[in-house]
Amino acid sequence: MKDVQGQTDKRNIDIQKVGVKNVEIPLVISRKLKSGKTDSQKVYAKAKMSVSLNRKYKGTHMSRFIEILNDYRKQNLVGVDIKKMLSDMQERLESKNAYIKFDFKYFIKKTAPKSGLEALMCYDCYFEGTLDEDDYKFYLGAKVPVATLCPCSKEISDYGAHNQRALVKVKVSYPENQHIWLEDLIKDIEEAGSSEVYSLLKREDEKAVTEHAYDNPKFVEDVLRDVVLKLENNKTINFFEVEIEAFESIHNHNAWAYQKSEKYSK
Amino acid sequence: MKDVQGQTDKRNIDIQKVGVKNVEIPLVISRKLKSGKTDSQKVYAKAKMSVSLNRKYKGTHMSRFIEILNDYRKQNLVGVDIKKMLSDMQERLESKNAYIKFDFKYFIKKTAPKSGLEALMCYDCYFEGTLDEDDYKFYLGAKVPVATLCPCSKEISDYGAHNQRALVKVKVSYPENQHIWLEDLIKDIEEAGSSEVYSLLKREDEKAVTEHAYDNPKFVEDVLRDVVLKLENNKTINFFEVEIEAFESIHNHNAWAYQKSEKYSK
Amino acid sequence: MKDVQGQTDKRNIDIQKVGVKNVEIPLVISRKLKSGKTDSQKVYAKAKMSVSLNRKYKGTHMSRFIEILNDYRKQNLVGVDIKKMLSDMQERLESKNAYIKFDFKYFIKKTAPKSGLEALMCYDCYFEGTLDEDDYKFYLGAKVPVATLCPCSKEISDYGAHNQRALVKVKVSYPENQHIWLEDLIKDIEEAGSSEVYSLLKREDEKAVTEHAYDNPKFVEDVLRDVVLKLENNKTINFFEVEIEAFESIHNHNAWAYQKSEKYSK
Amino acid sequence: MKDVQGQTDKRNIDIQKVGVKNVEIPLVISRKLKSGKTDSQKVYAKAKMSVSLNRKYKGTHMSRFIEILNDYRKQNLVGVDIKKMLSDMQERLESKNAYIKFDFKYFIKKTAPKSGLEALMCYDCYFEGTLDEDDYKFYLGAKVPVATLCPCSKEISDYGAHNQRALVKVKVSYPENQHIWLEDLIKDIEEAGSSEVYSLLKREDEKAVTEHAYDNPKFVEDVLRDVVLKLENNKTINFFEVEIEAFESIHNHNAWAYQKSEKYSK
Repeated sequence: MKDVQGQTDKRNIDIQKVGVKNVEIPLVISRKLKSGKTDSQKVYAKAKMSVSLNRKYKGTHMSRFIEILNDYRKQNLVGVDIKKMLSDMQERLESKNAYIKFDFKYFIKKTAPKSGLEALMCYDCYFEGTLDEDDYKFYLGAKVPVATLCPCSKEISDYGAHNQRALVKVKVSYPENQHIWLEDLIKDIEEAGSSEVYSLLKREDEKAVTEHAYDNPKFVEDVLRDVVLKLENNKTINFFEVEIEAFESIHNHNAWAYQKSEKYSK
Repeated sequence: MKDVQGQTDKRNIDIQKVGVKNVEIPLVISRKLKSGKTDSQKVYAKAKMSVSLNRKYKGTHMSRFIEILNDYRKQNLVGVDIKKMLSDMQERLESKNAYIKFDFKYFIKKTAPKSGLEALMCYDCYFEGTLDEDDYKFYLGAKVPVATLCPCSKEISDYGAHNQRALVKVKVSYPENQHIWLEDLIKDIEEAGSSEVYSLLKREDEKAVTEHAYDNPKFVEDVLRDVVLKLENNKTINFFEVEIEAFESIHNHNAWAYQKSEKYSK
Repeated sequence: MKDVQGQTDKRNIDIQKVGVKNVEIPLVISRKLKSGKTDSQKVYAKAKMSVSLNRKYKGTHMSRFIEILNDYRKQNLVGVDIKKMLSDMQERLESKNAYIKFDFKYFIKKTAPKSGLEALMCYDCYFEGTLDEDDYKFYLGAKVPVATLCPCSKEISDYGAHNQRALVKVKVSYPENQHIWLEDLIKDIEEAGSSEVYSLLKREDEKAVTEHAYDNPKFVEDVLRDVVLKLENNKTINFFEVEIEAFESIHNHNAWAYQKSEKYSK
Repeated sequence: MKDVQGQTDKRNIDIQKVGVKNVEIPLVISRKLKSGKTDSQKVYAKAKMSVSLNRKYKGTHMSRFIEILNDYRKQNLVGVDIKKMLSDMQERLESKNAYIKFDFKYFIKKTAPKSGLEALMCYDCYFEGTLDEDDYKFYLGAKVPVATLCPCSKEISDYGAHNQRALVKVKVSYPENQHIWLEDLIKDIEEAGSSEVYSLLKREDEKAVTEHAYDNPKFVEDVLRDVVLKLENNKTINFFEVEIEAFESIHNHNAWAYQKSEKYSK
């Protein structure tokens, strides 16, 4: 059959990104256990993959993205070697640039502060990688819920203070020869809220969480700055973006704040 | 051209509902002003429309739904006469039963409790109507944000109490010759929370709202029961459904409660 | 500490449903392999759980829902014995009625029609169970994408025919001593479209799929009736609901159709 | 009362963006009529607003964003003078940088190709503006549905060709003293699909649309390149981003392509 995609295109436009989106796939993720040992977790993921397309070609070959995903899945290697996948994409799709993003659901066991009961928390995370010729960049992302308690409301009210769930979104990058565990990144973010949030809390835990939040009032600005400080002090990280959105309990709109590190450090 | 939809179908199945969904349209809604006078508001709406289809026909004529919508829009009558629209649908689509739902965004001016400043709040509302032969039913729906403050957290903690935004969804029905204003329904629901939520609050308002919520701790069960009491005591209402979902500030999951009136009163 | 939830309530209202929503959890699902053998799959799920609450109590004990989930998860039994979970909920929450729903992401290997290549497809599915005193009902749900090709467009056009992705949502129930596999239910639905949809198609497959769809033009009404016929002919099923929504390629709105079996057969 | 936000902060971090999100508001949009005259349309919008925050302050004053919105709304000027709003935000929030985005629902009357019938189409659009000290940039965005028909499927199949709805997202910028109408931008994008999509089509229109799409097969790559050519040839535009996502009728995932103009031309 005719290769329509391989036909010559005359519009003279190199395409920056073309590929597939919303491809659902099970993914195997390395994880860090409390013991310090490592393990793996099978997660539900959505993949977004693209390559650049030279001006001479009419189209890319979309099915090859799925074939590559499938090959890696069979070897249980997806998530383990993003760079190798990108390099395979460059080769099999005859492209200079390759891009991949896996959004996935990641479970971590969390311990209630007083009762010590354990239950799972689920976090929306992602791996993102780009390979431009042979320049590789990797990004790790996590969306972490916390509680924020309003310092102004606490200060001006005779009693009480409005508080709410907020979502902190962090994206970091680091050199190829280094590593950051999702478990560590998420813990750093959780500590920056007025309080952490939990799946399972008994009464004694609820008392502790309520009082802890009241003792640690924070605006979205405070959470943002505290997360930024942690990321700046982390010598492994050479790039970051932080966004926090608080689902205000006294409004039907949200407060938010955003910060991006000025540039990649080497 | 051939009328493929009008062809005979031999599977012997009367279809209960077939139609169109997600049709975006501007809608004109009657509204009640604070002065007691009435007025109208042009709103953004999504329409869902269907008819039943007799077993003898292969398909319905989808474009007629859009034509009917369009006719009513030109007359600025949409939202004013749901029953007439349903009856037109029955006639033009040769059907025994007709169904329509308009989900729309409705703005109401709201006054801050202390400063008296006014700003708009937006509510997700809907009109829903069914006409089965000549049996007409109309439903009015509204999703109303409130704040809930946890009675348990307040009771067991030395200070503070977790609170959060919650969404109360109410659906009511009433006889054809009566009327309930969205403004009144929404006000009833707002009063059932630990506190109302607002678009615009200055510092003096924030203090009042914070203290009011602390003085009125409520579980989702409490909000549900208080809304149910109001709806049961409203003699105009002959059917209702209530659901409340609270976006807990100490968890990443939600608390919810649901109640449906046992049956239509006549 | 004081049991605020256990306090007496004087509003005299039995609550029909109160519980938790959006609890993310890994779930173990039994599955049917092509060999006819069975196996299990660990999936990402969201749980919704509730009980009824007697008028005498102020509130339910939300943390117990999470504890029950957690106990079952530790035994790798979540999803295996819904009835037992419901009965535990009744007991531990002192309630007459219990309700549970697990929405989950389910992967099934699918073979391309000509090349024979295999890749995973992901389906949104759910388990839903109710236990009213000792009356148990179980529902199995699946959302299955198919392609529909318009019979009218094919008939009236000199060449071509518009076609699009459509989503078929099916919910079925069957007696406690019987069983329906998701694999079988999904296959039945997929066969009712103009064509099935696939994750991985090579050129020879794309030709086959394109021509097969053109040879099998179907309105949403046709898909609905064909699914209804299959469900009515399935002697195991004693209740069903079907909905189909087609994301029309020539419109920005959707065509949809809906059918519910009149009543439970015994 | 104490101004908690105005307190001194010692973390030494200038915040890039802090503000409010998801503020629902009616917006006034200028529009171009077919007659060439202009008019205005009141639309439903969601606002996102932020300012930068100097390192010396603990927090920004969130209520002022809502007050500014409210002031403009009362004068029916929201959406009318973005630059002036940004400058007001700089002044009232004592900030060097201001950002605003209005996402809104915009209706345009569209004529069916053969019957000449008119009906409304709704488009998701946005205005986005930044004011960094006195450097003002304005962006206009639109999400436009089209149909794409696969050139490969058409070529290799004996008859038929898969086609689907696709969404083209375009963002453009242009100098302050120039203007681009949404009506013109949207028309340019619609012409780049295999076919346009419509709200209302009678049988004669459906035949025309079906055949037109079959005569104009296009990959997402083709649509992207054709849109890029139009934007590059538009002398008013000095920056653009284009993304297209096709909801493939033979897959459950999407094809997508993306292009960004290399840099702002002066």
